[in-house]
Amino acid sequence: MNCRFISIQLFNLRIGLTESHIGRTMIGEQISRVVDSRNENYPVGTIVRNFSGWRHKTIIRPENTRRMPDLGDLPLSTTLGVMGMPGLTGYFGFLEICKPKTGEVVVINGAAGAIGSLVGQIAKIKGCKVIGFAGDDEKCKWIKDLGFDFAYNYKKVILADVLKKSAPDGIDCFFDNVGGEFSVTVLENMRSLGRVSVCGIISKYNTNQINSNAKEQPKDIYPIPSTVMDSKQLIVSGYDVNKNWSDEQWKEGEKQIAEWIREGKIKYRETITEGIENMYTAFKGLFKGSNIGKAIVKC
Amino acid sequence: MNCRFISIQLFNLRIGLTESHIGRTMIGEQISRVVDSRNENYPVGTIVRNFSGWRHKTIIRPENTRRMPDLGDLPLSTTLGVMGMPGLTGYFGFLEICKPKTGEVVVINGAAGAIGSLVGQIAKIKGCKVIGFAGDDEKCKWIKDLGFDFAYNYKKVILADVLKKSAPDGIDCFFDNVGGEFSVTVLENMRSLGRVSVCGIISKYNTNQINSNAKEQPKDIYPIPSTVMDSKQLIVSGYDVNKNWSDEQWKEGEKQIAEWIREGKIKYRETITEGIENMYTAFKGLFKGSNIGKAIVKC
Repeated sequence: MNCRFISIQLFNLRIGLTESHIGRTMIGEQISRVVDSRNENYPVGTIVRNFSGWRHKTIIRPENTRRMPDLGDLPLSTTLGVMGMPGLTGYFGFLEICKPKTGEVVVINGAAGAIGSLVGQIAKIKGCKVIGFAGDDEKCKWIKDLGFDFAYNYKKVILADVLKKSAPDGIDCFFDNVGGEFSVTVLENMRSLGRVSVCGIISKYNTNQINSNAKEQPKDIYPIPSTVMDSKQLIVSGYDVNKNWSDEQWKEGEKQIAEWIREGKIKYRETITEGIENMYTAFKGLFKGSNIGKAIVKC
Repeated sequence: MNCRFISIQLFNLRIGLTESHIGRTMIGEQISRVVDSRNENYPVGTIVRNFSGWRHKTIIRPENTRRMPDLGDLPLSTTLGVMGMPGLTGYFGFLEICKPKTGEVVVINGAAGAIGSLVGQIAKIKGCKVIGFAGDDEKCKWIKDLGFDFAYNYKKVILADVLKKSAPDGIDCFFDNVGGEFSVTVLENMRSLGRVSVCGIISKYNTNQINSNAKEQPKDIYPIPSTVMDSKQLIVSGYDVNKNWSDEQWKEGEKQIAEWIREGKIKYRETITEGIENMYTAFKGLFKGSNIGKAIVKC
């Protein structure tokens, strides 16, 4: 099969760079087109999702591919974004861990990313008040346009102050892509019985860690202030969207997301970089915050 | 009212010593006998539970006392232990957060304490495999006698090794009194969809912290390895037994615990120190690990 689109993901850093080595293919999800086949269920021209990594041509067994969802009029690239792993990560991670109720207050960081921007819109569909944080003013403008009630550039505000201002009675749901000090402050401002969905810990994916021996580093820690643990009955949960939900659930999730897109309730953006030779630049963009929405490379 | 028994609790350290000052009464729960009253519902001789702290005589309003549970033939001191806050802390914190199922593997640290020893016995009633950790061999012998499947002196074993040996398929429920490195290791050995009830973080209650300015200290953190957060759908929850469950629920819990004691399914121990003048010695005992079961001072 030949590559059509490759997904650029944060976990490339953790898993790809720390557990991989020179000469090995970088891990990653791609959309590919079958160009030769000995399996009648996958004739030439079939489009498949798979984890064959950062490369043009791959020989693969059908059981190592994933079935495509029904895309209707949606572009193929969405199966790596809003209709793919990022979309379902946001969908399940928010709905099944945060279990949002009408009128609750939701905080999302990395809110202009593929996952965060979807979660914020789902939270609005569920009738929540949504406070989003992103790293520059353009991103904040975009998530405000998406219907977020508050959008803050975290580089320009004092987190504790804006949380107290925009959520004076506390936070019910926290969808966390960041970890570290950011999370400590949000957790301290949560209401009893709040739910925290830990989607990613980007604050820990720093370059120092990559360049040195992982075993000599202090362990990466998702921090929960012990004062919070002593007093609030918070639920803090991590997850793996590929393991924790069944194929059946994925199909339902994909169907619901597609429906919301067609109803105009969910908008999405993709930052598509042309050419596999520009993958590293696209990847670095995640850390410089230069992309909005899902980062994809077109082969 | 006159004091009869005073409870010695870990939170005396955090709340009492860090937020209190010389000349102020040390906080704490006690059982007292009314010796003078202007309220006909609380005649002389009534026994009440209250939070009047470490002192002999107190003038108190009825709304600042708690109703006693039906003790039947159980001694009065149990209302500060297995039939009181420690008992209910273990009961709700384990059953409602860990939601143990038959055949699941449960890890408990501080397992010879008032809370841990009860939780382990409840876990056995629920059909779980129970692995307990305590700080000396006598305590380990006792919890083994209570029916724990494994009892380890954590000072003499390598935690990761004994967990792999006694729970080769991973841990489902972790009832945590300790925090810190201990928790990191247990969390790394948990199964997907595991539940962690964070009851206390004794590893953080160290003397350095008491003697210096709390604001200058790094924040106390309950540590969850980010690798665990990325891959397992763990639920990690703290709680406050006084806030999170209603009076009605407390009554049901007390009734159930009393029933189990009468049926011989729950055993408990108390370390009772005579004389209010020995309170500080009794308190220090918590940190030296010299008590088994609930620490109580008889006035």
